[in-house]
Formats: sequence, C-alpha cells, structure tokens
Amino acid sequence: MQSVDATKTEVSPILFTRGVPAVEALPAKLLGECFYNVLSREDGWSVLQYGHNGGYEPLRQLIAGQYGVNDNEVVVGNGSLHLQDLISALLIRPGDVVLTEQPSYDRAIKTFRRRGAKVIGIPLEHDGVNIAALEKAISQKVPAFMYVIPDFQNPAGVTTSAEKRQALVHLAEKYGFWLIEDVPYRTLRYSGKPEPLLREIGTSRVLTISSYSKLISPALRVGYVVGPVDLLEELRKLAEDTILSPVLPTQAVVVEFHQRGYFAANLENLKQLYAPRLQVMIKALKTHLPNVPFAEPEGGFFVSLNLPTSPGPNLLARARQVGLVLTDGRSFFADPLDEETEVGKSFVRLPFCALTPAQIEEGVKRLASIG
Amino acid sequence: MQSVDATKTEVSPILFTRGVPAVEALPAKLLGECFYNVLSREDGWSVLQYGHNGGYEPLRQLIAGQYGVNDNEVVVGNGSLHLQDLISALLIRPGDVVLTEQPSYDRAIKTFRRRGAKVIGIPLEHDGVNIAALEKAISQKVPAFMYVIPDFQNPAGVTTSAEKRQALVHLAEKYGFWLIEDVPYRTLRYSGKPEPLLREIGTSRVLTISSYSKLISPALRVGYVVGPVDLLEELRKLAEDTILSPVLPTQAVVVEFHQRGYFAANLENLKQLYAPRLQVMIKALKTHLPNVPFAEPEGGFFVSLNLPTSPGPNLLARARQVGLVLTDGRSFFADPLDEETEVGKSFVRLPFCALTPAQIEEGVKRLASIG
Repeated sequence: MQSVDATKTEVSPILFTRGVPAVEALPAKLLGECFYNVLSREDGWSVLQYGHNGGYEPLRQLIAGQYGVNDNEVVVGNGSLHLQDLISALLIRPGDVVLTEQPSYDRAIKTFRRRGAKVIGIPLEHDGVNIAALEKAISQKVPAFMYVIPDFQNPAGVTTSAEKRQALVHLAEKYGFWLIEDVPYRTLRYSGKPEPLLREIGTSRVLTISSYSKLISPALRVGYVVGPVDLLEELRKLAEDTILSPVLPTQAVVVEFHQRGYFAANLENLKQLYAPRLQVMIKALKTHLPNVPFAEPEGGFFVSLNLPTSPGPNLLARARQVGLVLTDGRSFFADPLDEETEVGKSFVRLPFCALTPAQIEEGVKRLASIG
Repeated sequence: MQSVDATKTEVSPILFTRGVPAVEALPAKLLGECFYNVLSREDGWSVLQYGHNGGYEPLRQLIAGQYGVNDNEVVVGNGSLHLQDLISALLIRPGDVVLTEQPSYDRAIKTFRRRGAKVIGIPLEHDGVNIAALEKAISQKVPAFMYVIPDFQNPAGVTTSAEKRQALVHLAEKYGFWLIEDVPYRTLRYSGKPEPLLREIGTSRVLTISSYSKLISPALRVGYVVGPVDLLEELRKLAEDTILSPVLPTQAVVVEFHQRGYFAANLENLKQLYAPRLQVMIKALKTHLPNVPFAEPEGGFFVSLNLPTSPGPNLLARARQVGLVLTDGRSFFADPLDEETEVGKSFVRLPFCALTPAQIEEGVKRLASIG
C-alpha cells in the first residue's frame, strides 16, 4: 500500500468532515433570479408580512401534492433539525427512551438528549438495523419514537431493505411508538431502484422529515415534516409559539425554483456531479483498503467504515499528520450498548460530494496509510 | 358620544389585533433587488452553504458596530422570539421566577412559561414598572431574569423613564439577575428624545434583544441579541445545536439593505407614514373617550387603555358586533397578582400602524360606543 509522505507539512489537507454540498452545485444565480421574481410580483409583500404560520402555504401545497396528502399534514420550518427539536419537545416525556440506528446523525442524537430522552442505538447492518436487537430493546422499554434514515444513511451510507422497512413499521404499529424517517438524501439516487418510504408501508405511526439542504441549498434552511394531522396540528402550534412563522422569502423561492423547472434540472446536475465521485470513492476504498468491508451506497453523501486496527483516541491527530481532517466517529454513536463501548473509535465517515475525484483518491490513500 | 350603527351587518371590520407593519411600508422591490445582488456576486454561494453559525458574520459586525461591542457579543437568529426561547432554555431552571411588566408581550409570557418559569407581572405605570412592587417581588424571590420593553412598550405604548431605567439596572446588578430589554420599536420614534438603553447604564446584567421585523419586514425573521460574551457563547452553541445556522440569504440582504442606503431611507418613510397615524389615534381617543387616561407614546406601534366600564368576558363579542376586532386583553397579563385577577378584562391594545387615519378615527368611535 502506497503511503503519502506524512512528514511534509505543506500537504494540503483533505476534509472528510461534514456532509456539505459542493460549492459549484449551489445555484446562486438562479436563486437570485427567483428571489427577484417573487418580490417583484404584485403580491410580493405577502412573503414579507406576518402570516403563514406552519410554513408558506404554497410550499405546503407543493409538498402535500408530492406526498399525496393534505396541506394540514405538512409543516414547513427553518430546517429539519429545528423540526426534530420541536417534535422531540412534543413527544419526549421525562424518562423516555428514543431509539436510533447505531451509528446515526450526531446532531439528531444530541437533540433527542437535550430534550430529555435516553438515546439507545440499535446496531446498523448493511441492510438496516438488526431487527432482533431492536425487538430486544423494545421489550425492555417501548420508546417514545425511533429515528431512522432509511436511504443512504448518515453516516453509514446504508439503505434499509424492503423487508426491514416492513419490520420497522410493523413493530411501530404493534407497540405504538412513532417512527421518524429522515429522508434528505433519498432523491439523490445515482443507481438502482428506491425502496418504499416507511409511510408508503403504513402512515399511522410514521413522521417523514426532509429538507432542501442537499437538493437546493443548506442555508435556505427549509425543512418539512409530513405526518398525521392531529400531531401536525400540535406541531404547528408549538412552532408558532416558538418562532411565529418560519422565514418566508426563502420558502417562496423554493416554490418558484420548482415552478420555473429549475428544481428538476438542478437535481440532474447534482446527480451528474456526485455519481462519479461516489464511484471514485468506492474504487479507491477497494484499491487502498481492500480488506475493509463497507456498505456500497447507491446515492447520498456518505460512505463509512471501521478501520481494521483500532487507532485509539489519537485517530484524529494521526489523520491530521497525513493531511486528513476527520469527524470524531464516536459522535455518531448514541449511549452505546455495553459490549460496544469502544465501537465508535475506529469509525470513519467519508463524505464525498464536496471533494473532487482527485481529492477523494488522495484522501483514501492517506486514510489507508494510517489504517 | 356618537355611536355607530351596530346593527348594520355590512359594516367593514376594523382590526385592532396584532402589531403588524403597514403593507405599503414593506419594501418588496428593494429587497428583491438586494437578494438578486447578493446572490449574483462572486461569493454569492457563501450565503447558500453551511456556516455562519450564530448568525451571518457581516451582519454581526454591522450590529456590533452600532452597539459599540465586539462580534462575539452578538448572536443573530431566526427572529427575536426564537432567541427569547433559546435564552429561556439557558437561563430558566425548574422553580425559577421570571418577571415581566404587566401587561407585557403575550408571546414572550407564553415562551417563559413553556420553558418552565413561573411568570409574575409587575404593574406598569405611565413611566415604567412600579419600582416598589418590583422590589417586593424580588424580596420574595430573585428572578432568573426580568423581561422589559422599555421603548413604546408592547402592548401599553409606555416608555420607561430615565430614573426607572437606572433603578432596573441597579436592582439587577444588586440582586444578580438578568435584565432582558427588548427594543424592536426603539428606532421608530416620531417625536421627543430617546432615553438611554439599559445597556448604556450598565452592561454586566443586560441582554439587549431586537429585530428588523418592524424596521424592514417581519417575514425575514431576522432578530438579534447583544450581551456579555460568555453568555452569548453559550447561546451561540445552543443555537447551533438547535438550528445549525439561521437562514442566511435574508441576513445577507439586511446587510445589503444597509449598504445601499435603503435602511435609512426606509426608516424615514416608516416614520412619515406612522407618525400621523399616531397623532390621529391620540386625537380620536381624546375626542371620543375623553375621560379615559392613557400613556401618550412618542413612537412605536401601540396605544392602549382600560375601558372605564368593565365589559366582562363578552368584550370581544360586543366589539365584533360594532365591526371591531380586538385581541383578548387578558393574554397580555402574566399570572396576575391576586388583587388584579380581573384587570386584563377591560384592557384594549390599539395598534395603529397598519390602519389608515380614517380607519383609526372610525375604530375609536366604535370602541367608544361599547366602552
């Protein structure tokens, strides 16, 4: 295995840190045009005034149409993370347990904890969580909800199989807990065919969360929830009490971006940009870390793996020495089951969208030199 | 007193409800131009990407410059209400008391309660809260914080005198509680001279909250806090954990709106539009409700009064009969002191900015017919 010269300090660092879109994929000029058009219209004032609590009504209609639900089954907020926070405030009572995949999105785990939950991670396999482990956890305590990212999971890149999706919905309905499916990457599929949404299997216990952060721009902070009308009405009220209304001009621009046909074209651009990067990542891992298993995603932002030799607490420091910036793998692991206490230490998430093929190839080489 | 014919159902209703800007005062075209310019620049992508947690850095710099503080003493969020929510999460511990003026901003009272505080209102006089009542409340329990709107108060229209401002800061420093001054209306002064900000009297226990809702547009949802660096760093972290970053394009547009000179011109326009409306309101009240005392504001959005004959729980219904839509006065009163249990029932807030002079005159006539 070829290794880079780690002693050279002029090595330009490669960032395998957060899952950010490629800068060249951000449609700044088109969005500028959309803002201008929305605000130049006769009713431009309407996206500047108070109102639209629960989200800009035309955007709620657009999303409702896409999911085949009514407007009152959709709430739009300032990013999906804040909606997770508000849902947690509604659903988590003192002493409650929340289940997540293990590993899972670090900020979601923090959110559920901050709102008072004991967060327990269920081991994630290459086709979704281990169902036996999930059943065991439920038998010990039925959770307030389980949070899953069924498509191109963050951080693992795993897509949950049709069978395990059925099992998740079945268990949620049988034991009466909420199932939150977070699907921000779902549309970014570069190959293969999609599995059904959890809400396509059963709607009674499912909340579907998504956002435009990966599909248009993160800093628009436009995220949404689709779910049963009673719970969504509670959520709308809590959102109004907390923020009045979300920011409106940005939500109006998301609608305009669709109506002008920019959304569909932009999604194609994203796929054309990201698909080869994923291919380079997979090939580089197979070349430079040939004995390390990993789930091969067909879309999304992430590939991840466990380094074969546990590098201990100094992984991040050693990575920096070879010009590699990593996120601490342990942050993706919820309160770990006893036997897994150490598991996050050798876990590495590799976001590939914002790196050039050359950077991905070089980054994996550097990773192999310390793995 | 002349009364309108309340039996005519075709009476067009006059809304004395929420404090919204006049629609004709919303600078839609100028904002459209600013969005377009911000996003057309070479670095337009930077307001679409992740980053600027704690607020868009150039806006933090602009605000810091206005208040004579450093950037790290400013946090910008998605509207000041959400910042109040986050500050409450930081400062309120179980069993804590929060003091407000009585009456006060209804949504702030709800926020402090939702975050676990017992909210106690201190009677508001025409020059600020009753200081003896405040001292008595503090002697019973030192609050986590006191929330005040010292300029053109919502809902009362009262401006706190220089002497009472000194007393507030003195008490906060002596007893060690935070003083939150919310000043969204301060710049909208139509006559007279400003009193000092609380933070100009002493900075160690003061958080200053404001927003651009009344100065540019509510739906931009751009609000900010200025305060001591240690607390603001905690707030920035909690905001990042809760929302990642606030919406950025709107914050960049607030900066652009200033840099193009639009902010100053817009503020002049607002004053020229609103000042005569306030004068009509004051004159109409003196004409049609000559024996009802009220604080005469020199700016802001609101005049308020207590109707001389307590109309009981049916005030809102009776108002509707004469074509007048009011907000329930009781919502502006925190958990009331015993002797004041009934006080909110006859309280009426009269927002004047979004009504024409003719509507204001007619609305006060209708109010007088049921008062």
